[in-house]
Amino acid sequence: MDVSRPERLSASEAARAVASGALSAEQLVEACLARIREVEPSVQAWQYLDEQHALAQARARDSDRAEGRPTGPLHGVPVGIKDIIDTTDMPTEDGTVLHAGRRPVRDAAVVAQLRAAGAVILGKTVTTECATYAPGKTRNPHDPARTPGGSSSGSAAAVAAGMVPLAIGTQSNASIVRPASFCGVHGFKPTHGLISRHGILKLSRSLDSVGVFARSLDDIALLTEQLTGFDENDPDTQPRARLPLQATLSAEPPLTPRVALVKSPIWERADASTREAFEELADVLGVQCEEYPLPDNVAQAWDWHRTIMEAEMAMNLDAEYEKGRERLSESLRGQLARGREISALDYQRALARVPRLIEAFDELFAHFDAIVTPATRGTAPPLESTGDPAFGTLWTLTGMPALSLPLMHGPDGLPLGVQLVGRRHDDARLLRTARWLQAQVAASA
Amino acid sequence: MDVSRPERLSASEAARAVASGALSAEQLVEACLARIREVEPSVQAWQYLDEQHALAQARARDSDRAEGRPTGPLHGVPVGIKDIIDTTDMPTEDGTVLHAGRRPVRDAAVVAQLRAAGAVILGKTVTTECATYAPGKTRNPHDPARTPGGSSSGSAAAVAAGMVPLAIGTQSNASIVRPASFCGVHGFKPTHGLISRHGILKLSRSLDSVGVFARSLDDIALLTEQLTGFDENDPDTQPRARLPLQATLSAEPPLTPRVALVKSPIWERADASTREAFEELADVLGVQCEEYPLPDNVAQAWDWHRTIMEAEMAMNLDAEYEKGRERLSESLRGQLARGREISALDYQRALARVPRLIEAFDELFAHFDAIVTPATRGTAPPLESTGDPAFGTLWTLTGMPALSLPLMHGPDGLPLGVQLVGRRHDDARLLRTARWLQAQVAASA
Repeated sequence: MDVSRPERLSASEAARAVASGALSAEQLVEACLARIREVEPSVQAWQYLDEQHALAQARARDSDRAEGRPTGPLHGVPVGIKDIIDTTDMPTEDGTVLHAGRRPVRDAAVVAQLRAAGAVILGKTVTTECATYAPGKTRNPHDPARTPGGSSSGSAAAVAAGMVPLAIGTQSNASIVRPASFCGVHGFKPTHGLISRHGILKLSRSLDSVGVFARSLDDIALLTEQLTGFDENDPDTQPRARLPLQATLSAEPPLTPRVALVKSPIWERADASTREAFEELADVLGVQCEEYPLPDNVAQAWDWHRTIMEAEMAMNLDAEYEKGRERLSESLRGQLARGREISALDYQRALARVPRLIEAFDELFAHFDAIVTPATRGTAPPLESTGDPAFGTLWTLTGMPALSLPLMHGPDGLPLGVQLVGRRHDDARLLRTARWLQAQVAASA
Repeated sequence: MDVSRPERLSASEAARAVASGALSAEQLVEACLARIREVEPSVQAWQYLDEQHALAQARARDSDRAEGRPTGPLHGVPVGIKDIIDTTDMPTEDGTVLHAGRRPVRDAAVVAQLRAAGAVILGKTVTTECATYAPGKTRNPHDPARTPGGSSSGSAAAVAAGMVPLAIGTQSNASIVRPASFCGVHGFKPTHGLISRHGILKLSRSLDSVGVFARSLDDIALLTEQLTGFDENDPDTQPRARLPLQATLSAEPPLTPRVALVKSPIWERADASTREAFEELADVLGVQCEEYPLPDNVAQAWDWHRTIMEAEMAMNLDAEYEKGRERLSESLRGQLARGREISALDYQRALARVPRLIEAFDELFAHFDAIVTPATRGTAPPLESTGDPAFGTLWTLTGMPALSLPLMHGPDGLPLGVQLVGRRHDDARLLRTARWLQAQVAASA
């Protein structure tokens, strides 16, 4: 491990270097800040960043170690936090002028967990407006004329640009897998309810999920493992035993994994080059990969998702609509206006479809370890939009764990993610299958 | 204990007599059937009752005992089941011609629990139409020109008339406490989610609760304790330790209980004689009872309840409305039509009020063991309606445990219940406080 360029270390490497004393937290954070000074003018990933405050946290972690106080698994490691996630020591503005200058009085549950794990809360990363579609200022680190994707735009871009090894995002449609695909990093949305959403801007209880960005699977497992657990303040978390993500990831699969290529009803929306790339991937995997057709009625899932998301957003952003709709973007105002027109009957009907939709995947998961499917139509489009979320919708609606792996490139040379989707609560196996998939692709290159 | 009139025994006495061999289950059930033959023509509590099938169950329980097979806490004790609760061996018709002849393929969770406890499923008791407002055929055992109350009409009347010591009912507004008050029996609606609703006609997930009728607090505790527990098929049950209802009920309160007289915003809807009776009760309890004013905004709770109930009924009875609305009563058709017009926004707004409403009672329960409040306006009105549910609404909306105790009579000599309401999940203390209250009233008589 080369600690001369700390900002290039993975989080796992950095944590080990800080724990062993080979590197101080201050050196690590200072290296990340130097990288930020270098690339932030073009990428613009940060909504709020106070260098002195970040360094003060790092020095406090160094003195923990020096004075023999307890240290955590992320001791001294900097993490970027999407700016819809509450922090007591930094503003949280939710990507809207309506919340400008907002200073939360409590940390979100995930922020408290990160602090307990010893992490340095480096700063707040740019979100789209209220974590929906209107873009923020962030640009794709691979091409400043392209979108980083959204809504977790700054988190994905900051990790991709080497500014920070880890970042937290959220997803209610495709807000983690899409920016991960466009920015060429690992993005993981665990099973719905695995990570508490307490203290995070609420859009849709049924859909909102917390997830993570990193530059390796090890880092994904390390970070996610610090965040899972029951929280009585989030009614969708459950008192379950902690998932052994790191242990499972580092073990060999007991049987060679088998994956299902799921084209899904929106396959034709993918670019021709994306479709070809997935056919080639299936060829590379050979007998371990089989195309799996979904039942026809799955095509309605995109409508059910929109009904649930817009109805719940109308409720959760009711005050913003009532008091400040003229300062919202046209797209968000339109979503909220549509949401207010949805009947309680249609809303409940859509909700009632979800358990049956989940059951429809039981047979697939009896035969396959995971689903392989595109994360996005193709590579990042121009800056005006954050890209089409449709390839994330089905897996968010069903609450299945979904991971975007930076395994492909488009004809334009930009990154393109492979989405791997697992059975609900089978997050550990999903990560292990991802490691196997990465190895297969690497071996074929 | 006099086993010469087994139908007059409490369930606890009957269970002990069967366990000791002083009485056979067959004798007990035959005595209940004889009482039914006598009074059913005027009361009409039963929707379905097959004497031979009931006796066959009783003989099977007797041979369990004779042959040394395991016996349960309700071994040989007959129980009446509201006819919206599924039974594999009897029809379940939900009080509507639309479900006439319906034969479930599975027992409801509570029925399975009763069978596991050794109970004899005596028969199905009359419900109002779909457990809502349109009356069934049942009459009040104390006056056949009066309603028994609803929607658990047959369950309350059967217990009151001495046909069966125990019966199961459900409540989404006041469907247990109202008939218990009118029929002069103990009726208990435990904390929302304490008893699984799997296999029971669903009206409103947020409000539907299962409860019990009996002629004593001991019997209420004995029966309820067989029914509680986590069921993965009911998303509102929780994996919690079982409540020690019987043990707590038989213990002395560590401190003399204090109860809050809550007049609630609908106090003026109670009959003048009811209001006087509660003022007298407060006098009898002296310093152990204090009037407690609720915050003003509680008055909106009745609107929130109606919004939630009608919106969720519209969803759950969607097929009935779509395919057979002309065969529904005008009142139910009206409820469903209104429910279909409710917006998802108003529905979610009403749901979001409930946690704050529950918190508004925290201070009360910091100072008092329970709330004392009317169960009904007054005694049973004439047969045309099942009476005003308003005195049950607030406690159903908040999911608090509520108990109607047969402690009063109206000026017409008919029974009138005292409703005792406890903190959520504090069901055991509520029963213990009820025993204390009964003793106070008895001592003052």
